[in-house]
Amino acid sequence: MSDFRSDNVTGAHPKILEAVARAAVGPASAYGEDALTGRVVDQVRDLFEAPQAAVFLVATGTAANALALSVMVPPYGAVYGYEESHINVDECGAPEFFSGGAKLVGLPAEHGRLDPAVLAAALDRPNHGVHHVKPAALSLTQATCDGTVYAPARAAELAAVAHGRGLKVHMDGARFANAIVRLGCTPAEATWRAGVDALSFGATKNGTLGVEAVVLFDPTLAEAFAYRRKRGGHLFSKMRFLAAQMDAYLEDGLWLENAARANAAAARLAEGLAAVPGVTLCHPVEANEVFVAVPESLAAGLEAAGFGFYRWPVPGRCVLRLVTAFDTREDDVDRLIAAARATAGA
Amino acid sequence: MSDFRSDNVTGAHPKILEAVARAAVGPASAYGEDALTGRVVDQVRDLFEAPQAAVFLVATGTAANALALSVMVPPYGAVYGYEESHINVDECGAPEFFSGGAKLVGLPAEHGRLDPAVLAAALDRPNHGVHHVKPAALSLTQATCDGTVYAPARAAELAAVAHGRGLKVHMDGARFANAIVRLGCTPAEATWRAGVDALSFGATKNGTLGVEAVVLFDPTLAEAFAYRRKRGGHLFSKMRFLAAQMDAYLEDGLWLENAARANAAAARLAEGLAAVPGVTLCHPVEANEVFVAVPESLAAGLEAAGFGFYRWPVPGRCVLRLVTAFDTREDDVDRLIAAARATAGA
Amino acid sequence: MSDFRSDNVTGAHPKILEAVARAAVGPASAYGEDALTGRVVDQVRDLFEAPQAAVFLVATGTAANALALSVMVPPYGAVYGYEESHINVDECGAPEFFSGGAKLVGLPAEHGRLDPAVLAAALDRPNHGVHHVKPAALSLTQATCDGTVYAPARAAELAAVAHGRGLKVHMDGARFANAIVRLGCTPAEATWRAGVDALSFGATKNGTLGVEAVVLFDPTLAEAFAYRRKRGGHLFSKMRFLAAQMDAYLEDGLWLENAARANAAAARLAEGLAAVPGVTLCHPVEANEVFVAVPESLAAGLEAAGFGFYRWPVPGRCVLRLVTAFDTREDDVDRLIAAARATAGA
Amino acid sequence: MSDFRSDNVTGAHPKILEAVARAAVGPASAYGEDALTGRVVDQVRDLFEAPQAAVFLVATGTAANALALSVMVPPYGAVYGYEESHINVDECGAPEFFSGGAKLVGLPAEHGRLDPAVLAAALDRPNHGVHHVKPAALSLTQATCDGTVYAPARAAELAAVAHGRGLKVHMDGARFANAIVRLGCTPAEATWRAGVDALSFGATKNGTLGVEAVVLFDPTLAEAFAYRRKRGGHLFSKMRFLAAQMDAYLEDGLWLENAARANAAAARLAEGLAAVPGVTLCHPVEANEVFVAVPESLAAGLEAAGFGFYRWPVPGRCVLRLVTAFDTREDDVDRLIAAARATAGA
Repeated sequence: MSDFRSDNVTGAHPKILEAVARAAVGPASAYGEDALTGRVVDQVRDLFEAPQAAVFLVATGTAANALALSVMVPPYGAVYGYEESHINVDECGAPEFFSGGAKLVGLPAEHGRLDPAVLAAALDRPNHGVHHVKPAALSLTQATCDGTVYAPARAAELAAVAHGRGLKVHMDGARFANAIVRLGCTPAEATWRAGVDALSFGATKNGTLGVEAVVLFDPTLAEAFAYRRKRGGHLFSKMRFLAAQMDAYLEDGLWLENAARANAAAARLAEGLAAVPGVTLCHPVEANEVFVAVPESLAAGLEAAGFGFYRWPVPGRCVLRLVTAFDTREDDVDRLIAAARATAGA
Repeated sequence: MSDFRSDNVTGAHPKILEAVARAAVGPASAYGEDALTGRVVDQVRDLFEAPQAAVFLVATGTAANALALSVMVPPYGAVYGYEESHINVDECGAPEFFSGGAKLVGLPAEHGRLDPAVLAAALDRPNHGVHHVKPAALSLTQATCDGTVYAPARAAELAAVAHGRGLKVHMDGARFANAIVRLGCTPAEATWRAGVDALSFGATKNGTLGVEAVVLFDPTLAEAFAYRRKRGGHLFSKMRFLAAQMDAYLEDGLWLENAARANAAAARLAEGLAAVPGVTLCHPVEANEVFVAVPESLAAGLEAAGFGFYRWPVPGRCVLRLVTAFDTREDDVDRLIAAARATAGA
Repeated sequence: MSDFRSDNVTGAHPKILEAVARAAVGPASAYGEDALTGRVVDQVRDLFEAPQAAVFLVATGTAANALALSVMVPPYGAVYGYEESHINVDECGAPEFFSGGAKLVGLPAEHGRLDPAVLAAALDRPNHGVHHVKPAALSLTQATCDGTVYAPARAAELAAVAHGRGLKVHMDGARFANAIVRLGCTPAEATWRAGVDALSFGATKNGTLGVEAVVLFDPTLAEAFAYRRKRGGHLFSKMRFLAAQMDAYLEDGLWLENAARANAAAARLAEGLAAVPGVTLCHPVEANEVFVAVPESLAAGLEAAGFGFYRWPVPGRCVLRLVTAFDTREDDVDRLIAAARATAGA
Repeated sequence: MSDFRSDNVTGAHPKILEAVARAAVGPASAYGEDALTGRVVDQVRDLFEAPQAAVFLVATGTAANALALSVMVPPYGAVYGYEESHINVDECGAPEFFSGGAKLVGLPAEHGRLDPAVLAAALDRPNHGVHHVKPAALSLTQATCDGTVYAPARAAELAAVAHGRGLKVHMDGARFANAIVRLGCTPAEATWRAGVDALSFGATKNGTLGVEAVVLFDPTLAEAFAYRRKRGGHLFSKMRFLAAQMDAYLEDGLWLENAARANAAAARLAEGLAAVPGVTLCHPVEANEVFVAVPESLAAGLEAAGFGFYRWPVPGRCVLRLVTAFDTREDDVDRLIAAARATAGA
């Protein structure tokens, strides 16, 4: 495909479709009490080396994030995160809705990675008791919205700042697979061993139809989550169809294989574009997103040539976001680079 | 299958699976801006002869109902409905959550069908202004929770009572297909021509993986619905996979074909059981649910024989609910009847 | 006065006004950090023999009830209470609002007093897990909406049913003073010793301008209450003016003195009316409310004579509610009785 | 008094107390249906030359602001305002709570006054439809949190930017009287003639016990406000006691007289402090708040001398906020100035 708009414009991997079709035969208990869902819960616990974790499947990333946060912060709480994060600007206030009106406090973050010192300074402002919302959670995005990743040590440092002040730590892992591929660490190292209390473990952007697992490493949050999931309309009666996707996603490492392809395509794309005159990479390319500042003529040229991408709203500059996915072909990457070079007159 | 617990223990129809697989190839705009979703919106409008209607896809019935109600009632509003309705007792307060704390007012209803006189009496109680929640919506279930249906004239009578007092009318059509098959009327006759302002048009229980269409016959409700769907985590990035299901569901009348099979199986089951000594039908069987009062020994006997069904919580009686579906086989129905007869010593 | 519409049509006791005027001079820390508020907190703790209790002042009974319940039930929780209770029908959904959408489950109650067996039966209905809201609190009204009182033993029995099933117990004490006068027990005996976890200790209806104390016998609820009070707009900057009222209310037993007058007037009124031909008391008169079933002609006659009262919405009967207060004069009571006798042709 | 911490540490003006005492005698209809409340509604309409306006009394500024905003923005809406405004940082998320989870978008503002160009730029960022909260209201603070005022022309310019993009305009007038005294314009000119749709007309900080009027110049917002006020626990049964305060507040211009005294004291204080070596005024002093940057030694000296004020949280600087009120004495102002001069070694 020559569509780099987002990893959510992709379809689904054949193995996911096959798994869904296999699951479609015969009766199964509803609402997650079927055997397949039980099996997936165990798989996720094994994957994260967290036998006590509570695991819940939902179908959208917004549901995963907002529900996870809703059991971590009271209505009078505050969630600290990157000021441009998805939960803060792209979910239409879903965390506010599910939490009953909590406040999201946005912090600046170079290349999308929060800075422990900035977080500490924000949390250590003079406290005015009940006049202010109560700091309750930190939310990290892994991979970040800017296409970078948090090294486990950096995440751990941030989590320590948060935990030391009574906050819980949430990780928005819409692109968790891409981060793990890049980091080469275990899922446990990237999450609970680094202080993460709850993870939105995304799969939708990486080859499934639509499924995310919320992993609560703190199992005391499970009961509230279960009620809130139902109440939010996110408990599927035919849960087996979410479970089947996650089952196939984890089976034989499909999730890592898909992410590795997407990351490799992004690296290839970044390398090729960076060599085009007038093009500058805005952020290190560590996952499957490429942000480049380009001449307006180059952007227009690529659009005219039929390539899909987003113009990122950066005042005074022409910045493009290009996203690769599990099914991005090298050929498409190369064609885009060639078109960029041609437009740039290189 | 010999599982009569619910129509949500069923899998999916092959045509649905094929449609999903077909939709999985290549890029498509996200969040419902793809061609297939657009096509389905048009299909639904055509089906309901309502070209102005706003149509939104979601994945669960609870989401459909709660979101629809949230654009029909203010937080200080009241929703009137059957006291045993799904929205009132089986959705964990989803309408309260999505509406911001509206109140559900339960009314008695013989065989699950609300009585216009009872509704009028409830609405005409002395008004205490702001001290009371404001009556804002009526919600009807079609087919009803008791397995009966509303004739369009009855629905229209109820809607007239509601509209005359400023309420909007919602229809929970989790089993709308079963009702239409029974009534033999058009979808338009059963809904907006009878005064329904918004319909939750269910497909999940009737052969799909999980998809429902909310049909807003009053298009002024559309903007709020769109924001609330996103905010509720119910806007799918890969919307095409909901659209593909609905597309196949409506194609060539699959929805009616499936429902007709379920209804026929229920009728066969009801006829067979009613002839068993000691068994009484609790409600007319007009759709795909059979409620029977039986001797405890018969219930135990069927359970021992491996049949699945729910014991309905009716104080002092042994009542069973048996639900048929698109894939219920005559053979299973007959085996259950035979087992009942055997247990009853007939 | 000849106005028996409610105890909230009364003005304020001179001692309350004097206390407010005294408190008005000079600066004082805002938001309850003043000395007078601190003193009142101690007074309330002493009065209830509950040194650990958290005490919060608010200005309305609805705020007291809704805020108290909001720290006792989750958004997916259910509050059990009398189906005609103030929280259920007269607060425009305030508990739903403050709790984030909890559900109020109404139970029948003879003379306004809940029955432990009825409560137990309601709580012991088959549990459907997350499909149902979670039973979370019981709310008792003392004195009841029907003008009766709960003996401490009855309250304790109900609290035991609730606590045994994991619910907390709230008491709406809008007319708590009237109940204590009637019962002759200590405030502790009527509350925490009987299992009450949180009390709305009303003063508005009994001679103040507008002040209520929420007494949390379970101090772990205090932090959430403090935040929610502020967030609900119920933290007064000039808290001293609420404190001054409560201080004078408790000083020298003014609260009991006022309630004793109101109760005595109600008893006199009940005795007098009961002797009028055609008049029947609907409930035992144990506090300051009198409910009588009367001929329509008698109701009309009293209205024509200028007496104020409410016609209670009881289908098919003419029922009047007459409420006495701290400033009801014997003369007015006697004039009403005389007018009733005259109208009845006695 | 030598307490400059805030205008809410003051008591109440004798005329307010007298009015409350006068109102305390005899019965009056509850919940605002009394004659005095009706009279106050008319007074406020007259004062604002707005005969169609809906007027509601509440007891706290937070209630006034949050309730007003709750009828102007949907749950999925955004409120734009100064990033340091009271609604944004000092009300514990009350607007989020009352609105059902709306988002407050903070903008920078020199001396507390929003800039129309900054507002326009924020509103004109690329629109992402339902992924973003919907811009719904602008909130201005008059006088501002920094002790300055909006000229009507500036407010009108901001309102035009807002209205042109479909937003409503709210004004937080906690110190509206101080602004009017400074501006010398009519209340109408400062509000609806400048485009304000709803005003929180504060009186608590200016000599009353606790009362605020919400003035809805757009009367279509009235019904929702009335329900929400009740539901929020802010409908006083003995409303006459709020009305009595507002009545006396407006009578014979007491509100302007009180504010004029506070403003004059602030001007005197500012002039005196500005002349002290090492002291810099942070903002123009246009109402009753004085912000000064001082040497740490001066702050400590004043504290040691027993003066009350707040240290404002400005990183790297020692900034004090001193607030005057209706009962600030010239003598206290002069003593503080003298102490500052002495400490500064002047």
